[in-house]
Amino acid sequence: MKQSKNQTYQGVQVFAPATVSNMGSGFDIIGFPIEGAGDTITAYRNTTPDVRIVQVTGYSDIPTDPGKNVASHAVRKMLESLDSHQGFDLEIHKSVMPGSGLGSSASSSAAAVVAVNELLGRPYTKRELVNFAMEGEALVSGGKHADNVAPAILGGIVLVRSYNPLDIVNIPPPESMWTMVFHPQIEIRTDLGRSVIMDRIALKDAVKQWGNVGGLIAGLYTSNYDLIGDSMEDLVAEPYRAELIPGYQEMKKVALSNGAKGFTISGSGPAFFAICDSREMAEQVKEVVSREYEKHQIDFLTYISRVDRSGTVVLERFHVEG
Amino acid sequence: MKQSKNQTYQGVQVFAPATVSNMGSGFDIIGFPIEGAGDTITAYRNTTPDVRIVQVTGYSDIPTDPGKNVASHAVRKMLESLDSHQGFDLEIHKSVMPGSGLGSSASSSAAAVVAVNELLGRPYTKRELVNFAMEGEALVSGGKHADNVAPAILGGIVLVRSYNPLDIVNIPPPESMWTMVFHPQIEIRTDLGRSVIMDRIALKDAVKQWGNVGGLIAGLYTSNYDLIGDSMEDLVAEPYRAELIPGYQEMKKVALSNGAKGFTISGSGPAFFAICDSREMAEQVKEVVSREYEKHQIDFLTYISRVDRSGTVVLERFHVEG
Repeated sequence: MKQSKNQTYQGVQVFAPATVSNMGSGFDIIGFPIEGAGDTITAYRNTTPDVRIVQVTGYSDIPTDPGKNVASHAVRKMLESLDSHQGFDLEIHKSVMPGSGLGSSASSSAAAVVAVNELLGRPYTKRELVNFAMEGEALVSGGKHADNVAPAILGGIVLVRSYNPLDIVNIPPPESMWTMVFHPQIEIRTDLGRSVIMDRIALKDAVKQWGNVGGLIAGLYTSNYDLIGDSMEDLVAEPYRAELIPGYQEMKKVALSNGAKGFTISGSGPAFFAICDSREMAEQVKEVVSREYEKHQIDFLTYISRVDRSGTVVLERFHVEG
Repeated sequence: MKQSKNQTYQGVQVFAPATVSNMGSGFDIIGFPIEGAGDTITAYRNTTPDVRIVQVTGYSDIPTDPGKNVASHAVRKMLESLDSHQGFDLEIHKSVMPGSGLGSSASSSAAAVVAVNELLGRPYTKRELVNFAMEGEALVSGGKHADNVAPAILGGIVLVRSYNPLDIVNIPPPESMWTMVFHPQIEIRTDLGRSVIMDRIALKDAVKQWGNVGGLIAGLYTSNYDLIGDSMEDLVAEPYRAELIPGYQEMKKVALSNGAKGFTISGSGPAFFAICDSREMAEQVKEVVSREYEKHQIDFLTYISRVDRSGTVVLERFHVEG
């Protein structure tokens, strides 16, 4: 889509999926999007030189100040890079609760940059857009993480091999892989989830962790679920973050003894997820974990999903006469 | 081969290859054997209850006290596990210098356990033998490492995912992958090579390292040499060990600018190696590095090799009448 010369307003609606990140040992480097949850952003060209948040629906308790909202912040960084003074209005519909561990802010950043890129005639590739969506992440977490925004934009299992230069590797998910995501409706702030992690680790633990990362990647390439499950063991984040999630260890035990191949926390939590080798197994794990979790009297949502392979998609394009 | 009932002496000669280990980011977890270098051990049943070193040739400056020699130590651990009081005589021919970074001690341990296992009628699988060969490693390095003994025994690129339980994953080498191994004839003691490594590392460096391990495994599965080469970057050992190897950084530069895809130190050094995408490229890299290295007036050996896929092999079996 090319930017039109005459002053028509143009709009676009895009959807960016929620994402599971870390996958255990792949702390800060691996993520994948799930189906059925994410943010929808409708973006319109406006006649100001500014990016504005004009509407937030769904989980609406997020900043609407464009300097504090991840979506507008990411778009501003992108416009700066293009030296563009075009302004945009963003309507955000959030279907994933912030502080879920499912990349809620990443969905907003991803949707926003893809939407505005579309309205500008696609000056950037999807891979390039990851850089700007990362600016949204930096705004909320203090660090430029790509393990949610890259899979949210690109789809598939994504390995962020390196940040400097940004090197993103697509890892093929096994055909039969399903996940059961379980989201207790409590909030863990991303910064709090991060603050429990040590900033130095014993080399022997680091070696174990990269042995597991190697095993996880090998397991994914060979559809070896035992290897995937064993390799998801995480020494860095799970031991600490698990304590912030009521009932976590119990649920892990229940899931693994009922057929789940792997089980760990998504991102900073509280959402956790099981890796399963069929849809039926994922449903079964959902049943047993849900039944067990009822004793905690905490509301929860569940998602049964394959790895989403589309990433952020354009749902609709609007031409509004000015 | 089954243990014969009547008292015949039996002997076997086996060859265990030298091994490249770490492969950069895969510190302590990845290794592969090369062709054309390694240890040959001839083992005979003796009439004592003890394991003896009866001959050492080649690089013969190693202990012959059975309690201090890695080969006999590994065999003793294996016999203990079998509750066997059979004794063996070992003749060792070492073609790789100890302290090379090419798994010299691992070759001896691997050859010894495979030889004696053969004479005992193969009570153990090759994978099980890794456990005993690791005891040989523990004797010299203080730690039970498998990143040399596992590839030396099993062949192929080996990922040691976990030690407890021992989980060894075979990673397929790209068909066209060749390595040029360069071994300056100076000795770096394994314990010294280890002592320069920190025992704690910054989490951000650890995350980079496991991003690289993930990339390395993905690169090997997809024969993506750029990804392999980039992912070999090591933040843990190379920066420190490089300083112990005269001319290392220079040679790395020369190799990478002349077609090598990746370049790093093998094990604790001083051997280093280049990953290349053809035999011709490996030969070319050998030429330019050799020419450059002459200025250091240090003797060196080079090996041009594919990844050896056989591991430790039986060369010959002897029946000696008693």
